[in-house]
Amino acid sequence: MVQGTLYIVSAPSGAGKSSLIQALLKTQPLYDTQVSISHTTRSIRPGEKDGEHYFFVSKDEFCAMIENEAFLEHAEVFGNYYGTSRKAIEQVLASGVDVFLDIDWQGAQQIRQRMPQARSIFVLPPSKDELDRRLRGRGQDSEEVIAKRMAQAVAEMTHFAEYDYLIVNDDFDLALSDLKTIIRAERLRLSRQRLRHDGLITKLLAD
Amino acid sequence: MVQGTLYIVSAPSGAGKSSLIQALLKTQPLYDTQVSISHTTRSIRPGEKDGEHYFFVSKDEFCAMIENEAFLEHAEVFGNYYGTSRKAIEQVLASGVDVFLDIDWQGAQQIRQRMPQARSIFVLPPSKDELDRRLRGRGQDSEEVIAKRMAQAVAEMTHFAEYDYLIVNDDFDLALSDLKTIIRAERLRLSRQRLRHDGLITKLLAD
Repeated sequence: MVQGTLYIVSAPSGAGKSSLIQALLKTQPLYDTQVSISHTTRSIRPGEKDGEHYFFVSKDEFCAMIENEAFLEHAEVFGNYYGTSRKAIEQVLASGVDVFLDIDWQGAQQIRQRMPQARSIFVLPPSKDELDRRLRGRGQDSEEVIAKRMAQAVAEMTHFAEYDYLIVNDDFDLALSDLKTIIRAERLRLSRQRLRHDGLITKLLAD
Repeated sequence: MVQGTLYIVSAPSGAGKSSLIQALLKTQPLYDTQVSISHTTRSIRPGEKDGEHYFFVSKDEFCAMIENEAFLEHAEVFGNYYGTSRKAIEQVLASGVDVFLDIDWQGAQQIRQRMPQARSIFVLPPSKDELDRRLRGRGQDSEEVIAKRMAQAVAEMTHFAEYDYLIVNDDFDLALSDLKTIIRAERLRLSRQRLRHDGLITKLLAD
């Protein structure tokens, strides 16, 4: 059985990472590519579905999962816990599906340690001006808030060199095509292809 | 300056490797992708040009180059020497051009040892029957000759697992597209992209 590949995708806010992943998933069938669903202790919001947007669990359940080393990575954000279940990811990968994980550099480091075969992609914005424009959003925030966002974005970007691939999101369609190219090429690697063409290879090498 | 990538391509005869490389070069500009030109001691044939099909050198010149470790790999075939000049390859790579090297598993092993950053691709035929059909050619050869060719093809194929990528040449256009996908994805790797976008990255990370 061919194993799927786990892709870690990181970027500063404003680089367009989430739009890229959403667009990618729309063009790929579900049996081919999926996005990882996180566990969280935060409350479910109107319109959200358990098992679709998140797996919603209690703090006790979450802590028990940490104890059992059930997470590939986890973090606390504003008092709520978020984590990526190893079992959930491994089940999807085992069915031959590629999984995308939208995560920051800290989560990426945890995943790499626990799953060295994961591939990682960093997305950069096309320019500092464009990044600034995107971080300003609708122009309703103070300069202080914007400066803080920019500092966070720069802090995230200082980790770009820890990733396998680098995509510059200047033209969205080109960046999406870059993302697809990486997935297709990874599927042509020996480890994937020798499993996929196992029968053919056995016949070709037989006397 | 962005360095080009050296691609080693191997396959048994009958897998369509040369047609694939020729088709690839037709679709890519020369400043982008080139095929490596070997040195040889064999005589120049009508229609061949020195420096285009081969670099034609004397046996003395060739031996002196071996002495000076000027070759990334070399081999003797039917009394003639063939070799890949390290300098010729490195000059083209330094200008940012990707170089393709059409070579057997033995040459590939020599290259990998001397240039570990080279990427290697193995091309397989779609089936044993199709390989047999292609090795029969115009049907003018004895069964003994065909059996010898098949044994050689199988010997070459036993080395497929030493390569980074595996392409099955069933549909020619798809195999060509696979080859292009690998080149595009390799250009998205961190090492290439960080040089290509050096200026952007410096600006993005500046406070």
